[in-house]
Formats: sequence, structure tokens, C-alpha cells
Amino acid sequence: MKPQRNYITSFSNPKVKWVSGLKEKRNRDEEKKFFIEGYREIKKAITGNPSSPIPCLPVNITSLFISPECFLGENEESLIASIRCPVYELPRKIFEKISYRDRPDGLIAVADTPSASVPWKELQVLDTNPILIIEGVEKPGNLGTILRTAEGAGVGLVIVTDPRIDLFNPNVVRASTGTIFTLPVYIGDLGEVLTEFQKRGYKRYAVTPEGKTLYSSVNLKEKSVFLFGSEQYGLSPLAKELADSTLYLPMLGEADSLNLAMSCGIVLYESIRQRSI
Amino acid sequence: MKPQRNYITSFSNPKVKWVSGLKEKRNRDEEKKFFIEGYREIKKAITGNPSSPIPCLPVNITSLFISPECFLGENEESLIASIRCPVYELPRKIFEKISYRDRPDGLIAVADTPSASVPWKELQVLDTNPILIIEGVEKPGNLGTILRTAEGAGVGLVIVTDPRIDLFNPNVVRASTGTIFTLPVYIGDLGEVLTEFQKRGYKRYAVTPEGKTLYSSVNLKEKSVFLFGSEQYGLSPLAKELADSTLYLPMLGEADSLNLAMSCGIVLYESIRQRSI
Repeated sequence: MKPQRNYITSFSNPKVKWVSGLKEKRNRDEEKKFFIEGYREIKKAITGNPSSPIPCLPVNITSLFISPECFLGENEESLIASIRCPVYELPRKIFEKISYRDRPDGLIAVADTPSASVPWKELQVLDTNPILIIEGVEKPGNLGTILRTAEGAGVGLVIVTDPRIDLFNPNVVRASTGTIFTLPVYIGDLGEVLTEFQKRGYKRYAVTPEGKTLYSSVNLKEKSVFLFGSEQYGLSPLAKELADSTLYLPMLGEADSLNLAMSCGIVLYESIRQRSI
Repeated sequence: MKPQRNYITSFSNPKVKWVSGLKEKRNRDEEKKFFIEGYREIKKAITGNPSSPIPCLPVNITSLFISPECFLGENEESLIASIRCPVYELPRKIFEKISYRDRPDGLIAVADTPSASVPWKELQVLDTNPILIIEGVEKPGNLGTILRTAEGAGVGLVIVTDPRIDLFNPNVVRASTGTIFTLPVYIGDLGEVLTEFQKRGYKRYAVTPEGKTLYSSVNLKEKSVFLFGSEQYGLSPLAKELADSTLYLPMLGEADSLNLAMSCGIVLYESIRQRSI
């Protein structure tokens, strides 16, 4: 049965104002909602990753805002039909106003903000390698890109410590291309997390421009946790102190560091390379 | 001798309007100017890279907009004194209006737009490895990140073919952290460029999700040219056809590709790794 649709024709409709307001962190916090834009992203949000040994963030979609004029494919209607929630249909002009994208594809879902503090430590087995810890991340786009890359690199768990951004900022969701829903991402306390992984037999590598060991000279076939610091401040003294070693990437030019997400990707793909030979 | 300063105190000053206007491509094209924000970036623009065998883009700064209230360090005044051009001093409030940054550091230079069509093919020797070709890039931030990473990876030459963005978009300069001035970056014709590198004994690798060969299984100690396609459309059929081989990166999750800049970085750092063993 096709769910009932509500048609919105005015910019001043309160639902339009409400959903636009979710661009502001203050409103997301107050409403305990966030928004997911795009076919691919919504699809991932409802599917999750059933084969992940560690549960992904649970997503409960509470309303859909759609604009069939903007649809790019043919499966939008069946995606919409698979979600049980109120559906608001908008003309393109109004949809573009609430959209976060230059080329919106006509689909925005609003969902309850999940709790990212799932007790992963209670898992008996944490059979995943490598693991990524991101400390104090400041830029939503960077975190999203890190998640997208980590998913490609087969990372089984990402822990974000002391984030200076909202994990559910629309730019995180967008840059992650929805992998924030298919990769377990949790918020944790750095000291606690590092102690736990030591107990579980992981080597803990802090990646930093002041690292002592070349990243590609280390045996990454072993269970590894990689730690990366914030864009502006790098890793905290605690992180560097608790790590088993510090790694650096070669910088052959004048610049002293790479972009945070880039450093992550290079180290993660070196880990894949070693594990596949 | 301290250059004479012009003090601006009003938002409606025509110079303020003029420099703000350079955020628009239309105005940059019309004025044949672009702007360089930040101490580090301006420093690189005036220094260039004297040790590069291929000349970098020549930068001629024609005016400076400064706000001493925003300075973060102690070397700003000597940097300003080293540039011969009119200097406009602004209060923080007005500077923030013309700035492209969240945390401006009080320095913006306006420069003549260089020609990016320098005849690199006339160079007798092109003693550099690897070389990067970016086809149809669409996002300024991506191109900037690629340049920053390429500089770190010791790339000697970047050729941009069929760009859908302005090479001198402020976001390219910013994301490149000024490496657009210390790394030779030229615009070229894809077919011409690929033919030229074949003559010069380079292996030409097209990196694409449909690639046939694992990127890390190829001998990258040889002289290599890496080709990457646009974010949305990937590489053109011509690029894939002319390349000597097509390379892929492993994707261990559900997603089918990485971010463009990320793919570049991973391949470039694999090239460093191989060349250093």
C-alpha cells in the first residue's frame, strides 16, 4: 500500500522550516534528529551492515521529504515505500532550499539521532583488523572522508575520541557517502580505549609528523590500532605516550604534513597491501 | 623603507567591494586577478620552488590586504615589507568580510592570474618521477588536496586536462596549502600529453574502479604517469584507451570507489614506498 503523502507547496510551511532548521547543530540537539540526504545514503541507513561482527549505528527514520522532479533513477519510489513514516512531497524549488547539495536527488530522510556510545567493550571477541581511532576531529568533511576510506579499506571499527564536531553533521553523512551507517562508529574515551586494545593484544600506532618509525616499515599483518590526531593540533601527548610506537609518512616536499583523511587512507591501504601478500 | 599604507575603515570602500568580488569566477576572469590568503600561502607564492627542474607558476602580487589585529605570528610585517605593492590595512571586522576562512590570519594578496599553459614539452629533459594527470576535476577542494599530497609525495609535475573549475579558485589555493606555487601545475590536452610521455619512455597508468591490475602489484620504480578522472564521471574512454595499463585499488567494503584525492594519495605513496626499497 502506498503510504499517504502530504503535499507541501509553500516555502513558509512549518515542516519546511523545521527540516531546514536541522542544518543547525542547536536544533539537531534539541530535536534529537538529524538528516540523511540522497538515495545511496538513505539506502545504507536502512540496510546497515548485517555482516559486521560489531553492530553499526541503528537508524530510525521518522519522516521523508521527497521531490520526484529531482529523482535521478527509477528505484526511488520503492525505497520510499520500504520506509514506514510520513512522507512530504515538495516541488523542486522548495526541495532545493532544504537540500545540502548542489545537485539534489530528491530524497531527504529525517531520523532519530542514535547514541554513539554503544558498549563495544562488552563484545567478547573483537575479531577485526585494523581499527581506527580519530582524536579531536574538527572538520565534518574530513571525518566523512575518513569513514568512506576506512570502509573501503576493510576497517572493522572506528572510534572517535573528543570530537569537536557533531557526528551527525550533514557533511559527515555526505562525505561518508553513507558509510557512517555500514561501518561501526563509536565515541569513546581515549585512555580507556587504548588500555582496552592493549589487553586485547593490539599494537597501537600513533601516526604523527613527529613519528619515529616509517609507517611502511612496520609489520601491519598483526592486529593494529591506528591513532590519528586533529587537523590543527595533531595527537594529544597522552595518545603519543600510550601508543606502542609512533609512525611517520615520508614528506618529500616542503610541506610538513598531509591532510588528516589522506594520512589515514595511506596508512590503511598500506595495511591492506601487507595483509594481502 | 616601510611601504605606504592605505587605511580602510568602511565596508563600502570600493577596494573592499573589488577584492570581495574576486570570490566570483566571472570577476577573476574579467580582472585577470586571483587571491591568495594566508601567511604560509603568500610566502610560498613569492618563494616558489627554485630547485624544481620544471618552472612553477610565476606569481606577481599586485596588492595586499592586511589586518594586523588578526596576525597570528611575528613575521607578518617582514613578509609584507618584502612585497612591493600597495598595502591596504583593514580592521578585523572588514577583513573577515573579504576572507575565505573561518579563522583569518590577516593576510590576503591579490595577484595576476598566471598562464598555466607554460610549454613544458619544450624541456629537453623531464627528469621527474612520478607525474600526475588529473582529468576533468570538478571540485576545487579536491584539486587543492591532490596538489598538497603530490608535493608531499615528491611528484615533479601535475597536468590538469579539461578542468571544470578555475585553477585559481581560492579553495584550490587554500586546500593546496600553497603548494600550487611550489609544484609545477599546468593545463594540457590529454591526447597530446599522453603521446608526449610515451615518447619520453613513461609508463602511463589509468587508475579507475574498473582497472585490471592491482595498483600495488605494478613496478612503480620505472618512470610512471598516473591518470585520474573526475569525481563524477571518472576517466574518459580516451584516457583508458591510451593508457598502457589500468590499475584498481582494493575496495573491501560495499562502496565502489574512494574519493578522487584519496585514490591519488594512496597510489603516489605506494610509488614512494617502492622507490625507497
